[in-house]
Amino acid sequence: MNNQVEKVPVFRFTKEGTTSLEVEVAREFPVTIILNNVELVTMLCSPKDMKYLAAGFLSSEGLIKSKDEIKKILVDERRGVVRVDTVEDKALAEDFFSKRLITTGCGRGASFYNTADAAIKKIESTMVISPGEIFKLADEFQHGSEVYLSTHGVHSAALCDRKKILTFFEDVGRHNAIDKVFGKCLLEGIPTSDHLLMTSGRISSDSVSKAVQRSIPIIVSIAVPTDLSIRMANDFGITLVGHAASGRMNVYTCNQRIARDIKA
Amino acid sequence: MNNQVEKVPVFRFTKEGTTSLEVEVAREFPVTIILNNVELVTMLCSPKDMKYLAAGFLSSEGLIKSKDEIKKILVDERRGVVRVDTVEDKALAEDFFSKRLITTGCGRGASFYNTADAAIKKIESTMVISPGEIFKLADEFQHGSEVYLSTHGVHSAALCDRKKILTFFEDVGRHNAIDKVFGKCLLEGIPTSDHLLMTSGRISSDSVSKAVQRSIPIIVSIAVPTDLSIRMANDFGITLVGHAASGRMNVYTCNQRIARDIKA
Repeated sequence: MNNQVEKVPVFRFTKEGTTSLEVEVAREFPVTIILNNVELVTMLCSPKDMKYLAAGFLSSEGLIKSKDEIKKILVDERRGVVRVDTVEDKALAEDFFSKRLITTGCGRGASFYNTADAAIKKIESTMVISPGEIFKLADEFQHGSEVYLSTHGVHSAALCDRKKILTFFEDVGRHNAIDKVFGKCLLEGIPTSDHLLMTSGRISSDSVSKAVQRSIPIIVSIAVPTDLSIRMANDFGITLVGHAASGRMNVYTCNQRIARDIKA
Repeated sequence: MNNQVEKVPVFRFTKEGTTSLEVEVAREFPVTIILNNVELVTMLCSPKDMKYLAAGFLSSEGLIKSKDEIKKILVDERRGVVRVDTVEDKALAEDFFSKRLITTGCGRGASFYNTADAAIKKIESTMVISPGEIFKLADEFQHGSEVYLSTHGVHSAALCDRKKILTFFEDVGRHNAIDKVFGKCLLEGIPTSDHLLMTSGRISSDSVSKAVQRSIPIIVSIAVPTDLSIRMANDFGITLVGHAASGRMNVYTCNQRIARDIKA
């Protein structure tokens, strides 16, 4: 299990006060599948069992039907590359690339995050919010989703200022809910810098990538972040808050935007 | 909220017995974004606020930076098509298509499900399982995830027979966990027909699509299905079980595979 989990420091805020501790978060790792020397796809996954992931993905896509079609599978765990060669050198890529389907869980980040080649511009914002204000927003957020309350089948996302929810959307896809928030902001001229993004979903690097595009200084999730989203939030100067519910939360990065006084 | 929710009949099994009732599930709908007459992407989403979804997606992808770049957005809600024209006729598609990133939530179904053009071959299986056996498997499944228990940041999936879990995987992506299960089965010759797929994640049409590829007759989720996944399971003759936890479950389709005797 070790390489799937990373220990990170957090500040935990509750109504009683603040503690500093270490928690475990899931690792998120980009893996590229190369089929017959053609780069097919890069997926964000847990860095384990990449051979099975590649074989299962190719099977789910209908690109291979049985084990006999596979000549070899080479896994480079460190670089995150799986090379699959088939017995017949299928010309699959074109057909595959001509169809793009983004499923309910998706959203596809603007690009695969790579610290080395990303031109990092830190998000400048002097926004400060108190834990009490976040608890209140999270509470309102969790009770705001009509579709969730009736179906338990959707995610939600919202843009907030310190005091209230400004836009709120639900969707079967957690990334779609965030895109709907930012789409409305874009089309209706609602500013996003110096505002907070709230999401019901787990935070992965793709969610942080969307926030970076809109200069969001603070992301609050009811769920938890991956290690890669934490590194990325650190790099871009975004305050990442997770596990926000029932009067408690963990702050993973850039805690200068969280007021020391609970109710400030 | 109406067009985001659908009422469906279910059989609810608890340790006390069976009731027949109607529940609400979230709707899932394919929406295609066409940018400057080039089909860019099809995404599975909740059928509402498609204009915002399209604008937000294009912004998240870095394809548009401001409202001023957009000449017009036309939404065909019934067909699920959003046409976006930009002021400058950007030649974006090629660059976009050359990069494929599948994010943590993803998995991309083999193809977009369309009853009209799908060559439907019903899954033939005489597998029968009792509610008691499913409760036991679900209980074991929920306690089997080390990484989840320490991080709350991953999904899990498993292949089971009536009595036990045969393969079990975790991943930050809910589709990746399923692909890992099926990849192992493919590479190691583990049969999947007459077996049960268990998942911690919500069931959308893409999850059903993966099960269809491997002739799985029964899918059990700890979470809930969308309306499209229910229709698809019906079409392919798959038994869909949701909300399976703590000695209760809902059966959405093909209940002939669920034994009437709780403990059978």
